[in-house]
Amino acid sequence: MKYLVDISVEPIGTGSTSISSYVKAVYEVLKAKGVKFYPAPSMTTLELDNIEDLGKIIKEIDNKLTDMGVKRIVTIIKVDDRRDKENSIDHKLDVIKM
Amino acid sequence: MKYLVDISVEPIGTGSTSISSYVKAVYEVLKAKGVKFYPAPSMTTLELDNIEDLGKIIKEIDNKLTDMGVKRIVTIIKVDDRRDKENSIDHKLDVIKM
Amino acid sequence: MKYLVDISVEPIGTGSTSISSYVKAVYEVLKAKGVKFYPAPSMTTLELDNIEDLGKIIKEIDNKLTDMGVKRIVTIIKVDDRRDKENSIDHKLDVIKM
Amino acid sequence: MKYLVDISVEPIGTGSTSISSYVKAVYEVLKAKGVKFYPAPSMTTLELDNIEDLGKIIKEIDNKLTDMGVKRIVTIIKVDDRRDKENSIDHKLDVIKM
Repeated sequence: MKYLVDISVEPIGTGSTSISSYVKAVYEVLKAKGVKFYPAPSMTTLELDNIEDLGKIIKEIDNKLTDMGVKRIVTIIKVDDRRDKENSIDHKLDVIKM
Repeated sequence: MKYLVDISVEPIGTGSTSISSYVKAVYEVLKAKGVKFYPAPSMTTLELDNIEDLGKIIKEIDNKLTDMGVKRIVTIIKVDDRRDKENSIDHKLDVIKM
Repeated sequence: MKYLVDISVEPIGTGSTSISSYVKAVYEVLKAKGVKFYPAPSMTTLELDNIEDLGKIIKEIDNKLTDMGVKRIVTIIKVDDRRDKENSIDHKLDVIKM
Repeated sequence: MKYLVDISVEPIGTGSTSISSYVKAVYEVLKAKGVKFYPAPSMTTLELDNIEDLGKIIKEIDNKLTDMGVKRIVTIIKVDDRRDKENSIDHKLDVIKM
């Protein structure tokens, strides 16, 4: 069973309106951890086999941003836990195909 | 000045776990209104010249889903209002390019 | 028919991790507009008779924060549009009573 | 260091627009686990000493709702990770006091 988890990271108090370097940092953490993900302008979609990994992933992202000087990090997350049918990023990409 | 607005529509009480027909309905409303948008597994990103249009768009989407039999609609929205620099879907797509 | 709309405003690039002055500013805008609302640590719940007012409210909040020096404002919104039964802040407060 | 985590659970495909029984179920899981939380109409705020607990909490909530017959559960989460100052539900309640 897979969990689809959308995340969006908002650094607070950085003194700059640009957030692109932090977006890149998030991707680096996900790649280093071997998490399958799909980037989008709105949120990044993660495919997790085990939802218990979520907290650890958030912590590593926040640690990385803290290393970059961010002192407050707000993360928006949407967890889609579907129990009747296998869920996946590929399935969702099929749904949104126009 | 452009507003980037991410939306995700969750129909409540439909009796079915599938939401793909409602996602299609959202795209149809946006196309009919001539709103520029970018679909993704997580949320759909809209590019609005005027944020005052937001409520009307939500209302038309909800009306369409009501016509399809949905009786309660929860919509998650993220508004990105950047005042120091022109924002756009194209700019965000550049940022997430890997 | 009432719409329940939860909002949470995140100022980006302010140089300070404190957001309490912006929270107060949001309340001031809502009061000045005569919008019924319920504050909470997570999000502020608004009770709107007309969802078309949403964009104008966001715009006025963002204008106020811009006057305070904020150059990028991310607003998280959750719209609860229930069509089968009258919804209200009072009803929701009953539900969460423990 | 405390993490403030707001959660909102949306059951999908239940056949009923009422979600109050699921809200109660969420509170029961949190109480049984000894998690400090603050209910609100918008989202429930949790105070976590360890963000790594988040996934396990989501899993237990989803398991409980699955036992109640829900087959798809969407959870909206906002994590506030403030590293420069101790954060708490009590501090946030002070901020929103009007």
